[in-house]
Amino acid sequence: MTSSRFGRLAPGVRDVLPAEAHRMRELKERFSRLVEGWGYKEVVTPTFEYIENLASEEIQEDKFFKFLDRQGHLMALRPDMTRPIARLVATRMKGITPPLRLFYLANVFNYEQPQVGRQREFCQAGVELMGTSSPEADAEVVALVTEYLMQTGLGDFQISIGHVGIFHGLVKQLGLPKEVAQNLKEALGNKDFVKVEEIFASHAATPEEARRALDLIELRGGPEVLDRATELAQEGPASDAIGNLRQLYQGLVCYGVERYITLDLGLLRGLDYYTGLVFEGYTVAMGFPICGGGRYNQLLAHFGYPMPATGFAVNLERVLVALERLQGPPGEPVTDVLVAWESKSMARALRAARELRNQGLKVATALFEYSPARSKSEARSLGASRVIYFYDNGTSEEFVIAKS
Amino acid sequence: MTSSRFGRLAPGVRDVLPAEAHRMRELKERFSRLVEGWGYKEVVTPTFEYIENLASEEIQEDKFFKFLDRQGHLMALRPDMTRPIARLVATRMKGITPPLRLFYLANVFNYEQPQVGRQREFCQAGVELMGTSSPEADAEVVALVTEYLMQTGLGDFQISIGHVGIFHGLVKQLGLPKEVAQNLKEALGNKDFVKVEEIFASHAATPEEARRALDLIELRGGPEVLDRATELAQEGPASDAIGNLRQLYQGLVCYGVERYITLDLGLLRGLDYYTGLVFEGYTVAMGFPICGGGRYNQLLAHFGYPMPATGFAVNLERVLVALERLQGPPGEPVTDVLVAWESKSMARALRAARELRNQGLKVATALFEYSPARSKSEARSLGASRVIYFYDNGTSEEFVIAKS
Repeated sequence: MTSSRFGRLAPGVRDVLPAEAHRMRELKERFSRLVEGWGYKEVVTPTFEYIENLASEEIQEDKFFKFLDRQGHLMALRPDMTRPIARLVATRMKGITPPLRLFYLANVFNYEQPQVGRQREFCQAGVELMGTSSPEADAEVVALVTEYLMQTGLGDFQISIGHVGIFHGLVKQLGLPKEVAQNLKEALGNKDFVKVEEIFASHAATPEEARRALDLIELRGGPEVLDRATELAQEGPASDAIGNLRQLYQGLVCYGVERYITLDLGLLRGLDYYTGLVFEGYTVAMGFPICGGGRYNQLLAHFGYPMPATGFAVNLERVLVALERLQGPPGEPVTDVLVAWESKSMARALRAARELRNQGLKVATALFEYSPARSKSEARSLGASRVIYFYDNGTSEEFVIAKS
Repeated sequence: MTSSRFGRLAPGVRDVLPAEAHRMRELKERFSRLVEGWGYKEVVTPTFEYIENLASEEIQEDKFFKFLDRQGHLMALRPDMTRPIARLVATRMKGITPPLRLFYLANVFNYEQPQVGRQREFCQAGVELMGTSSPEADAEVVALVTEYLMQTGLGDFQISIGHVGIFHGLVKQLGLPKEVAQNLKEALGNKDFVKVEEIFASHAATPEEARRALDLIELRGGPEVLDRATELAQEGPASDAIGNLRQLYQGLVCYGVERYITLDLGLLRGLDYYTGLVFEGYTVAMGFPICGGGRYNQLLAHFGYPMPATGFAVNLERVLVALERLQGPPGEPVTDVLVAWESKSMARALRAARELRNQGLKVATALFEYSPARSKSEARSLGASRVIYFYDNGTSEEFVIAKS
């Protein structure tokens, strides 16, 4: 019973104490209120599933928490919610006329090298908008995540927006073999533009073509980069992607959120299911993206129910860390009043406690007959600013507790 | 990729669709609001822990979901929250002056034979009150769970209350060997009073002693059973337990919740850590207890920080099933308005949508330029009662959608 692990936690997971747990609950409640106001409806899926439902060719299964069930089937703790929700919609919600607006608040699991902001278990808040491939649908999810990040109190975030069509267009144009395309993807993921330049230089027909490809994929900024991109891109997936981003950007202007947006034509996200828009949100307080998302038009077909879809997920652990860095540690919720009593006055005191709670106050009550002195010292350690004490002679007295 | 498990869920876990997910979220928010009003503060622990922290001699580890981490250590998905919170308090909250009032809303995992109301993953809402061994502390947690069950809309529940001291007193009085005591525990757990009678008959010194023991452990009802129990019990653990229950009952009368209480002197709960009060809540709509709890004065010492404690957990899945049986299936949250636009009016329409959301309405917006006819048909499938349509001539029009 007393191994070296007794009393300890596994690497990459953690306990959350009251002050932080309270802020986390506020983040969750704010999220559900917001997205319900936009017409989204919650779904819940199990914490673990058969690995067949979670895995794909490109997903790194070595990041999964896997276990065998008692029938010998391989299970995994879900690494994200997009696949489980696609499965759910394809199996249980086929009868519902699209568009479907779904949201979730769920813990997900990734076997990462733990560091601050990169936990192995973390809570995601996300939405999926299914049934429409329009740029306006993409604009809705980007505007919604922007609205949510504003409401969390993170003032200075930026959403980087890209499109996988830029990458696919260049792969096609330069005729990159599969493994070179994979190397290019990784180089872009690591923002290793030296490597990107090497790949272009060794596969382009001319130095001019290589330069134009590099100029295109390095474009980053406001809507003006779309004009420059149109000059640089060839007809095909890349130019289609630029047209799509232009419409999306117009939509974001209609939502009035363009000041939070940076176009980044080299942005690619790790997940293989994206087919169009991809985006990530950053704040100065955090080196990792605090949210991400994009369009995935093929994933529902994988589960037998072809339908375009787009969505995002916010990593609430990272929002919590960023808020703490920006605003300092959260305060604990404060108990307002301690109600205590002399021996025969418990029932009367408890009725008063009930009334105070009905007024919205946080009220702790005595756990046996406290003296007035004991009441005051316990109120002090609870952080309560008042004691209401009930005497057996039918009177009560209020003590104000000075802040320590 | 197309194994027979693809698209399916493991036995004993399930998806929750929007109507039910919405009711579940309401149950959770109501819980956190209520217990915060009583001065409880939330804590969160990881979904999985080293098995050393979760296991004990008596716990049936075969009910655990176990897996090996990559260092070869045995982990388990938490089967309840009481042990993890005891570990948390003993390791991270030692500096805080008791009493500690903590709450949680957490998914827990048990490898049960699945049936309705007995899932392998379910959400528990619970509290732990640590630092006081008084009957008033027990009364607080029983009164709090009663208040919560009232607020869920379950009208007809009953809380059965017992005390493990009755059992221990009889084991001591009759000198039952360990394995017979275990058989008695199981017989009481199964309400198999024929078996209980056999055990008493074969171990009591006289038929009279056996009869009195059986009479005692079969007592069930209002406060009058405590008077009868006092006549039947011998000095020692059993009579102490009866005295403790009498004080607890007086506390519950002070809270005004006695009509929800049934004393049940044969009640024992499965978990080995209870040391005093034990209780379970039942409703006619559900064959399993919807909540349970009790006093556990030794568990914190197990983690190196001796402190008495009491608490409860409500199984929210069972509350959901019971509510559905009593009130029918929950309704989905309804989208109030669909906002749509002619080509150039998207920005104006989205500003209007924002204002409607600020008024508390649930507003979905068009996902491209809808015609008025398309707007109306989409509003109908969303269940929205109104469309507000923005024309490019600067006017807007409201369409009322008849309920289908």
